[in-house]
Amino acid sequence: MRILFLFLLHLGFCLGASLPLTAQLSADSLSLRAIYDEALSNGHAYENLRSLCKDVGHRLSGSEGAEKAVTWSENLMKKYGFDRVWTDPIEVPHWERGDAERVMLLPDSVPLDALSLGFSVGSDGPLTGQVVMFSSLQALRDVPDGSLSGKIVFLNQPMNPKLIDTFHAYGGCSGARSRGASEAARKGAVGFVIRSLGLRADDFPHTGVMFYDEQYDSIPALALSTNAAYKLSKALEANPKQELLIESDCRHNPDAPSHNVIAEITGSVHPDKVIVVGGHLDSWDVGEGAHDDGAGVVQSLEVLRIFKALNIRPKHTIRCVFFMNEENGTRGGQAYARISEQEGTTHYAAMESDRGGFAPRGFTVDAAPLYIDHMAQWLNLFKPYQIHFIEPGYGGVDINPLKKSGTPLIGFVPDSQRYFDVHHTANDVFENVNQRELELGAAAMTSLIYLIDKHGFPEEIDD
Amino acid sequence: MRILFLFLLHLGFCLGASLPLTAQLSADSLSLRAIYDEALSNGHAYENLRSLCKDVGHRLSGSEGAEKAVTWSENLMKKYGFDRVWTDPIEVPHWERGDAERVMLLPDSVPLDALSLGFSVGSDGPLTGQVVMFSSLQALRDVPDGSLSGKIVFLNQPMNPKLIDTFHAYGGCSGARSRGASEAARKGAVGFVIRSLGLRADDFPHTGVMFYDEQYDSIPALALSTNAAYKLSKALEANPKQELLIESDCRHNPDAPSHNVIAEITGSVHPDKVIVVGGHLDSWDVGEGAHDDGAGVVQSLEVLRIFKALNIRPKHTIRCVFFMNEENGTRGGQAYARISEQEGTTHYAAMESDRGGFAPRGFTVDAAPLYIDHMAQWLNLFKPYQIHFIEPGYGGVDINPLKKSGTPLIGFVPDSQRYFDVHHTANDVFENVNQRELELGAAAMTSLIYLIDKHGFPEEIDD
Repeated sequence: MRILFLFLLHLGFCLGASLPLTAQLSADSLSLRAIYDEALSNGHAYENLRSLCKDVGHRLSGSEGAEKAVTWSENLMKKYGFDRVWTDPIEVPHWERGDAERVMLLPDSVPLDALSLGFSVGSDGPLTGQVVMFSSLQALRDVPDGSLSGKIVFLNQPMNPKLIDTFHAYGGCSGARSRGASEAARKGAVGFVIRSLGLRADDFPHTGVMFYDEQYDSIPALALSTNAAYKLSKALEANPKQELLIESDCRHNPDAPSHNVIAEITGSVHPDKVIVVGGHLDSWDVGEGAHDDGAGVVQSLEVLRIFKALNIRPKHTIRCVFFMNEENGTRGGQAYARISEQEGTTHYAAMESDRGGFAPRGFTVDAAPLYIDHMAQWLNLFKPYQIHFIEPGYGGVDINPLKKSGTPLIGFVPDSQRYFDVHHTANDVFENVNQRELELGAAAMTSLIYLIDKHGFPEEIDD
Repeated sequence: MRILFLFLLHLGFCLGASLPLTAQLSADSLSLRAIYDEALSNGHAYENLRSLCKDVGHRLSGSEGAEKAVTWSENLMKKYGFDRVWTDPIEVPHWERGDAERVMLLPDSVPLDALSLGFSVGSDGPLTGQVVMFSSLQALRDVPDGSLSGKIVFLNQPMNPKLIDTFHAYGGCSGARSRGASEAARKGAVGFVIRSLGLRADDFPHTGVMFYDEQYDSIPALALSTNAAYKLSKALEANPKQELLIESDCRHNPDAPSHNVIAEITGSVHPDKVIVVGGHLDSWDVGEGAHDDGAGVVQSLEVLRIFKALNIRPKHTIRCVFFMNEENGTRGGQAYARISEQEGTTHYAAMESDRGGFAPRGFTVDAAPLYIDHMAQWLNLFKPYQIHFIEPGYGGVDINPLKKSGTPLIGFVPDSQRYFDVHHTANDVFENVNQRELELGAAAMTSLIYLIDKHGFPEEIDD
């Protein structure tokens, strides 16, 4: 009984607290309904994504595909007739996978599905060695330097399935991918293979960026599919002296010219204050970069399109940025912040979509609590749309350089369960994106930007 | 400033209110963590679903597949060593699709993807007629009786994409599928085709149950894929006298014997009070019934398995029911309630999973507010698992007959966005189920049942 009483008192208090906001909430709720209606019944995100995936395809920084994507983006933005569309030139790394790419169990030449990690060197012809398996990066670090001379290190560290947010499981393994090869070289190894950073048992290897420590030799580094990693671990159980053949042909080319692609709608009250929303245009060189991050760029563009379609003239300038080179260099995000600083642009807020085009769950915000609490007041407006949290957390890789100027950074958070089934694989294709999930994400992003633009943050409330 | 003050006061109040529950919440949160760990790192749901889909396949009531599914279920339940496993005999409708099934645009015999609706009569050889299109069931109702003599009615009513919960959009169209043929016959039509109840543009027709009104002729009723419906609407634009050929060979057989399949763990304190959890074992006769409702039955079984694996001896008896014949007759759910009543079984709570094996979002509860408020107190425990609501709503078709005895009915609610891409189609196969989404659902269901069993409802709190 006591519990019930407290519950009812609590409920009454909540209702009481929200009463002064009722009129405002009612107008806002109609606006959000209009935004969702537009996204769900007249959305462009899905067909734009189809075109990016099928007409352009994958688009690693420095590649022909990336330059095609820049042209595609600029043309598309111009078609919509926004107030301003332009490109910012940047220099990007230009790594290529090359042609030969194989990993085989010896002596029977049983092929294992594998992809070189981004920035890996090539093997300079076939390379063979006895395999030594480690279950974690720490276990590899723990053996003496030089003790793995001539060996191939196999880092067989699965993502932790118990973590509910799969990004946490990914975070727990990403060091193994990015730093594992140099740790192996430090111990004397001549080659490095890793279990792909994916949760599902399948045949798709996951590439992704890695870095060499200049103190040690640069050795070829590849990811095995989860099924291939299992097969190799079984082979090692049967024969602890199992040998592997690696061949890869990766190339490091000089930096190449590329661009961020940008569109904006000028603010009617604060044209000098920019709310930026973006995703990254580049992708890995397999699949179509559909979820990573075709989804994010078409959703970001949809924010501007919906404002225009609904004749919402924003108070602040709303700017959409397709960042280049998130995957291997983050030069686009860095350049955008640098150019903005040079031009004296004030960023009122920044939002990024780079977690796949899945059903929206909420937003994480990297900002002072005051900003987060202020936005969290709007959660009731999002309830009908199954958005359940606006809470402290990460913004995004490309908007992160804006943090030092105090801009609140907002990460759009879709459901994470399927992301690491496709992430950085040949399986990240248009067909694996659900139209409604993509559109609901665009609507959620537009809605939050609409509310920020309309109501502002606390320091502006009394403007 | 005022807003911030109210917000902080509110926050303080919430924290204050929850303090007396802290110790209990902490023990519970450890239990939920253990349940999720078991489901995610040692779960059986996914492999059980694979076996149901691949070793048994589709299983419409009265079919050989359905009887194979009953045997499969009983064997599986027995393997787990629960306290009791049994089957309850029931009689089920036995409708068959037959062999010939085609819809073609005349005169060029262009085939349209189509499936007869469940319980439809056959066409008794090829049937041709001029097509008259309606955009809603109401529009069809509005024309005079007898005015469509010899025609084929095409009910081209799309699901409303603006509704966030796709079940609401489905609900808005399901009358068109279930009652449309008799409305057409009432107007004089000789055949009936409907746009499939799906949101996506694709080539998979969706079957589903329909009923004839005995006052009117029984005419053949089929669903066209959304793409085929679009094609037919375009053909009608070009030629308002467009003719269609329909051929189908459906058969109504006498009722067939079948079974509900049941397992339970006996309660240690209240063995006479049963918490039941279930899904339906039957499926439509296309695809593999993976989401509908293979997911629901393997998740329900997983509830019992997890209790046993974690050595949780429940206070109440926990019973898992695989209901037969949800799709076309709901005889299993009705029989279960009837037999329970005859045996004097008290159902303390009932939970159903029949909305697909997608990422969990919450629970809807069909019960007095006291029960719902009581369960909603546990929401904080579910937050780390991204379960965000326990609110008034529907329980489920198979547990619904328990409502009259006052049992609180709980519907497990996964994300709905992809359900109507596969629902009642050849595309509802194992490959379209994500392992983690399925397992998270099983864990969420187990967790809520664990809390109900441990803490009881208000009338038992002072037991």
